[in-house]
Amino acid sequence: MIKAGVMGGAGYTAGELIRILLHHPEVELKSVVSRSHEREFLTKAHPDLTGETDLKFDSDLSQDVDVVFLCSGHGKSKGLVEKGGIPDSAKIIDLSTDFRHKDSSHDFIYGLPELNREEIKKADHIANPGCFATCIQLTLLPLAHAGLLSEDVHVTAITGSTGAGQNPTETTHFSWRSNNASIYKPLTHRHLKEIKQSLRQLQNDFNNEVLFIPMRGAFTRGILAASYLSTKKSLSEITSMYQEFYTDHPFIYLSKDPVDVKQVVGTNKAFLFLQKENGKILITGVIDNLVKGASGQAVQNMNLVFGLDETTGLTLKSMAF
Amino acid sequence: MIKAGVMGGAGYTAGELIRILLHHPEVELKSVVSRSHEREFLTKAHPDLTGETDLKFDSDLSQDVDVVFLCSGHGKSKGLVEKGGIPDSAKIIDLSTDFRHKDSSHDFIYGLPELNREEIKKADHIANPGCFATCIQLTLLPLAHAGLLSEDVHVTAITGSTGAGQNPTETTHFSWRSNNASIYKPLTHRHLKEIKQSLRQLQNDFNNEVLFIPMRGAFTRGILAASYLSTKKSLSEITSMYQEFYTDHPFIYLSKDPVDVKQVVGTNKAFLFLQKENGKILITGVIDNLVKGASGQAVQNMNLVFGLDETTGLTLKSMAF
Amino acid sequence: MIKAGVMGGAGYTAGELIRILLHHPEVELKSVVSRSHEREFLTKAHPDLTGETDLKFDSDLSQDVDVVFLCSGHGKSKGLVEKGGIPDSAKIIDLSTDFRHKDSSHDFIYGLPELNREEIKKADHIANPGCFATCIQLTLLPLAHAGLLSEDVHVTAITGSTGAGQNPTETTHFSWRSNNASIYKPLTHRHLKEIKQSLRQLQNDFNNEVLFIPMRGAFTRGILAASYLSTKKSLSEITSMYQEFYTDHPFIYLSKDPVDVKQVVGTNKAFLFLQKENGKILITGVIDNLVKGASGQAVQNMNLVFGLDETTGLTLKSMAF
Amino acid sequence: MIKAGVMGGAGYTAGELIRILLHHPEVELKSVVSRSHEREFLTKAHPDLTGETDLKFDSDLSQDVDVVFLCSGHGKSKGLVEKGGIPDSAKIIDLSTDFRHKDSSHDFIYGLPELNREEIKKADHIANPGCFATCIQLTLLPLAHAGLLSEDVHVTAITGSTGAGQNPTETTHFSWRSNNASIYKPLTHRHLKEIKQSLRQLQNDFNNEVLFIPMRGAFTRGILAASYLSTKKSLSEITSMYQEFYTDHPFIYLSKDPVDVKQVVGTNKAFLFLQKENGKILITGVIDNLVKGASGQAVQNMNLVFGLDETTGLTLKSMAF
Repeated sequence: MIKAGVMGGAGYTAGELIRILLHHPEVELKSVVSRSHEREFLTKAHPDLTGETDLKFDSDLSQDVDVVFLCSGHGKSKGLVEKGGIPDSAKIIDLSTDFRHKDSSHDFIYGLPELNREEIKKADHIANPGCFATCIQLTLLPLAHAGLLSEDVHVTAITGSTGAGQNPTETTHFSWRSNNASIYKPLTHRHLKEIKQSLRQLQNDFNNEVLFIPMRGAFTRGILAASYLSTKKSLSEITSMYQEFYTDHPFIYLSKDPVDVKQVVGTNKAFLFLQKENGKILITGVIDNLVKGASGQAVQNMNLVFGLDETTGLTLKSMAF
Repeated sequence: MIKAGVMGGAGYTAGELIRILLHHPEVELKSVVSRSHEREFLTKAHPDLTGETDLKFDSDLSQDVDVVFLCSGHGKSKGLVEKGGIPDSAKIIDLSTDFRHKDSSHDFIYGLPELNREEIKKADHIANPGCFATCIQLTLLPLAHAGLLSEDVHVTAITGSTGAGQNPTETTHFSWRSNNASIYKPLTHRHLKEIKQSLRQLQNDFNNEVLFIPMRGAFTRGILAASYLSTKKSLSEITSMYQEFYTDHPFIYLSKDPVDVKQVVGTNKAFLFLQKENGKILITGVIDNLVKGASGQAVQNMNLVFGLDETTGLTLKSMAF
Repeated sequence: MIKAGVMGGAGYTAGELIRILLHHPEVELKSVVSRSHEREFLTKAHPDLTGETDLKFDSDLSQDVDVVFLCSGHGKSKGLVEKGGIPDSAKIIDLSTDFRHKDSSHDFIYGLPELNREEIKKADHIANPGCFATCIQLTLLPLAHAGLLSEDVHVTAITGSTGAGQNPTETTHFSWRSNNASIYKPLTHRHLKEIKQSLRQLQNDFNNEVLFIPMRGAFTRGILAASYLSTKKSLSEITSMYQEFYTDHPFIYLSKDPVDVKQVVGTNKAFLFLQKENGKILITGVIDNLVKGASGQAVQNMNLVFGLDETTGLTLKSMAF
Repeated sequence: MIKAGVMGGAGYTAGELIRILLHHPEVELKSVVSRSHEREFLTKAHPDLTGETDLKFDSDLSQDVDVVFLCSGHGKSKGLVEKGGIPDSAKIIDLSTDFRHKDSSHDFIYGLPELNREEIKKADHIANPGCFATCIQLTLLPLAHAGLLSEDVHVTAITGSTGAGQNPTETTHFSWRSNNASIYKPLTHRHLKEIKQSLRQLQNDFNNEVLFIPMRGAFTRGILAASYLSTKKSLSEITSMYQEFYTDHPFIYLSKDPVDVKQVVGTNKAFLFLQKENGKILITGVIDNLVKGASGQAVQNMNLVFGLDETTGLTLKSMAF
C-alpha cells in the first residue's frame, strides 16, 4: 500500500483528492494536514465523507508517507517544500502553479501524462497542471506533435465555479454568479505560460500566440475549451492524428458527436470533438476541472510514479445529470 | 416631489430600492449613505444603474429629505434612529427587523398594507415586514380575519439567495448552493414572531402554532410559501373570503392555476393559489423577496404615507424567465 | 458473474443503472433493450459512457440473463412481465410503481433493504421503491418501529428535475425551471400509498395521515425530505433509536450537522439529521434520487438477492459540488 | 394611442413584447393572435400577466391596428405577410430572420437603431435583428465606422436558454442544460450573414471573416459577446470613437469595469467594456436577449417609426440578481 499525505486538506482540490484516495485500492491515507481545521474530523470540512473515514486533520504531516500531495494553493507550495517538513524519501505531487514552469531552480516534472508519461514514471517531484491548461493542451497536443501550429490559436473556454476555490468572493457569490455569464483575464490568463511551454516541447518552432478568452460559467464543475486555427489538412487526416496520438492514453476519447461538460463531470476522462469549418480545424474538449483538471490527474500521476496501472482508483461513475 | 434618502445604500435591498426610486415619478433621490463606499459613485456598488444616476454615496445623510429608508440591516436601525442624524420632520421606513414587534418603546407601524393600510397612511414611522413574513401572512390573513385559524398552521417555504444578503457566506457560495437544497432554522425562524403578531391582530384568540420549515433554494430571487390547516369550509367559500379580503389591494391576485416564483419575480405582486385536499385548505403564495418582500413594499408604504396611489412607481415588468 | 439485462434502457434510471452495472465487479451486462434506440450504441443515448462499453441496444431481451431490471416507466412493467419475454429463471427488479403495493395479484417484495432485507434476500421479484418514498421512509422507519407515530406526520420535500424523467415537459424546460420554485400534487402524491404501507408494516396501528408537500427544485439530482411530528421522547432517546435501527445498514448515516442534498449526490448513501424543537421531532433526510432513490437501490437489492455484500459496486464517489 | 397587434402571441418573444406594450404609455394592445391558444386568456400562456390584462387570444388579427409585430418564428413571417391578413396601412415589425438580409424582393429596413435610426424612422416595414447579431454588432459598429476592421474578427459569445424558444428540446431540458456548458454551430451561426451585412454597410471594404463560437449557457436570459482583433490604435483613441459613435444612442453605455449579463437583464440597455491587451482590442458587450435582443428593440423601433422618444415605455428596472 502507498502511504499518502495531503497538505492543505480543507480546500476543494484536497477534498476531491481525499474522496478518490479513500476508494483507491492501493492507497492508505495516513495524514491530512490543515492548520485551519487541526484536530477536527475530516468530515467537518468534507461532510460528504461521513461514513468513509474517521481521520482527523493533523497540524503537521506524518513522516510515515510515501507520497505527499500539496493542495495549499498557489504560492504556498514552494514554502512547504523548502521548510522541510516533508520526508526526503516521499514523492511530491504539487497541485499549485509553483513548479509548473521549467526552471533550473527545481526538478519538478510537468505532470500531464498525455505529454510526459515516461518522465513522470521516473520522477520524484511532479507539478500537476492547471485545469484550463489541461483541457486546452489536450485539444492541441496532437497538432503540435505534427508541427501544424502554424498560426495563432484561438481558444474560447468556460469554467465552473469550483475552479475559483473555497474562499467566498464576489464572483463566487451565488446571488451574482447564478444565471449569469462573464469573462475574466482575457488574453492574459496565467495558464498561457504552461500551455505554450508544452506546445513548444512538441513543436519547438511554435512562436505564435494562444489567444484565450476564459469565461465564468453558471455551473460548479467542469471546463469546456474550444480551440481553432487554420489548417490545410482534412478533417479525417487530423482525426487520424488525434486517434494515434491518444491511442494508449486511457482517459482521452474522441467523440463522434458534439460534447458537453456533464458528459465527463465526476470522471477523470477528457472527451474531444473535432470539426472542420471554412478552413479552420476546431477542437472542443471537456474535462471535470476538479478531477482530470486537478485531483484525478494528481492520482493518475501518482499511479505512474508508483508503477501502477494508470487508471487504478480512477474508474469513476460520471454524473451525466 | 418627495425627497428621499437611503441609509445602508450598498446592500441588496438598498440597490433594489434605488432601482425603483430612480424611476418613481414622484420621487427625487437626494442622498444615499454608505460608510463603506462613501464618495464612490452609486454605480460602483450597483453597476446595473449605469446611465440612470450620477449620484455618489454620502458619508452623512442630507437633511433635505422627506423620507428616509433604513437598509443597514438587522440590529442597526435602532442605533441610527437614536443617534439623531435623521431630520425630525422626515418619515422613516425601516427595512430591518428592529421595530417590527409592537412595543411601548417605539411608535413604528407594521408596514404590511394588506393588514394595516389605514394606520400606515397616518404613520410617521414604518417597520417594513420581513420577506418570509410577508408571503406567509398573505397566505393566511383572510383566514385569520374570518377567525378560521382553529388549529396549528403548517408552512413549507423556500427562499432565493438574495434573502441572505450581500456578504458572502458558506451558504451563499455558488459552489455550495447551486444545484443544492437545504433547510435552516426549522420551527424557529425569527419571522414567526411578526407573523403571529399579525394573525392575533385579526383573530385575537389565535393561540396555535405556526410550524414553519424554511428552505434555501437554488435560485436568487423569490419566495414561495405553502400554508395548510384543516377547515370545514368549502373551497369556494374560502375563495370568496380571499377575493373579498384582497378586493381593493392592487398587488394581490388569486390565480386559477398553480403558481411559481418566476411569475412574480421583478414585480411587487403576490399571487395566491387555493386548493382543498382531504379536508385541508392549502394556500400557496409567491412574491419577489426583494420587491414585495422588501424594497417594493417599502415604496408601497411610502406611497401610502404621502397620499399617493399605492401603485405609483410600482408597475414593474415581470421577468417570467 | 451475474448476467444482467435492462429493459427501457434509454431513460434516466436505466442510464444510471448501466453506469453502476458496468463498474460492478460481479456483473456482466448482457442485454439492454430499447425499442426507440434499437441497434444504436448505448453511447448514443448515454454519451458519457463513451469508452466504457461497446454494447448496442437490443430490440428483444437476451434470454441469457440472471436478472432483469425494468426501467420502462410506470404502467409498463406489468405488461412486460405478462408478455413473457423474460426468462422464468431470471430475477426481476422493477423500478416502476407497478408492483409496489402489496396485493394478491403478484409476489413482488417491496425492495427497501432498510425495511425488508431478509425478505429481499429470498425474493425472486423486487419492486424498487419510489424516490420520494425512499427518502421519506428513511426519516420515519425507526419511529414507526418504536410505535411512536401517534399523530399526523408532516413532510416537506424537494426533488431534482431528473425525477421527472427524460421526456421534456413544461416543468422540466430549463427556461421555466431554472431559478424557480413550485409545488405539485400537494397532499396527494402517489408515493403516499407505499409510504403508509411501510409505516403500517412496522406500526400496524398507524392510522394517521402523512401530509406531504412536494416541491420542484431548481436542481437536477437529489431529494431532501423533512418530516416532523410531536413526541415526548427526548432527542437523545430518539437518536439512540435511529442509531440502533440503522446500525447494520451500510448506506444510512446520522449526521451531526444539518444536511444538504449535494452531500450524497452521486452516492447510494442517505444522511439523516435529527432535531427537536418545541416538542416536535424533525428528521431531515437526503438521498440522490437516481441512486438510492432508484438505480443504486436496485443494485443494492440485486446484491442482496444474489448473496453479495450489500455494498458491492456501490462505493461511489460523492460529487460534493 | 398606437393600436398594436401581435401575431404568434404565445411564444417567448411575444410574451416579453406584451409585457412591455401593456405598460407603454402610448400603446393600446388591440389584438394578440395565437392559433394554438385561440379564445384562451393571454394569462393562460403568460400567467405572470395576471392582473394586467383581460385580453384573449384572437384567431385572426384585428384590422384596427396601426402596427403589427410578427413573432411566429423563423420562416413563418414571409407567409404571414404574403397571405394578406395584415392591413396595408399597418406598420410591420418582424422579429424573425425572414427579412433581415437586404434583397430586392422586400422593402424591410434592418431595425438596429444604432445603425439605421434615420431609415427606421421613415420605414413601414422593419426587420428586427437577431439577438446574437445585435450584441455582436454593438461591439463592432464603431470600429467598422472608422474602417478599422482590417483583419478577421474573433467572437466568443454565450446565450441564455430563452434564445432557443419555448418548444422543449434536448438542449433546453433542465436536467441536461443546468450546470452544463456546450457550444453549437461554431463558425457557421446564421446570424453571421446579418452581422457582415451591417459591417459592410459601414466599412464597405470589409472582406474578412467573423469567427464566431456560440455557447449555450446555464442561464435563462442574456447574451455576452466578446470580440477582438488587432489594432494599432490606443485604447483611449478607440474609447473615444465608441463614446462618439454611441453618444446620442440612449441604450448603449460604456462601462468602466468588466461587465456581466445580469447588469442588463430585464432592460433594453447594452453595456460595452473595452480593453487592449497585447495589441488586440477586445470589446465585451452584454444585452438581455429577449429585450434589446428581441422585443425591447422591436418597441424601440416602433417608437422611432411613430415619432416617439426612442426610450418611451423602455425605462425598465434591471434585475441585477
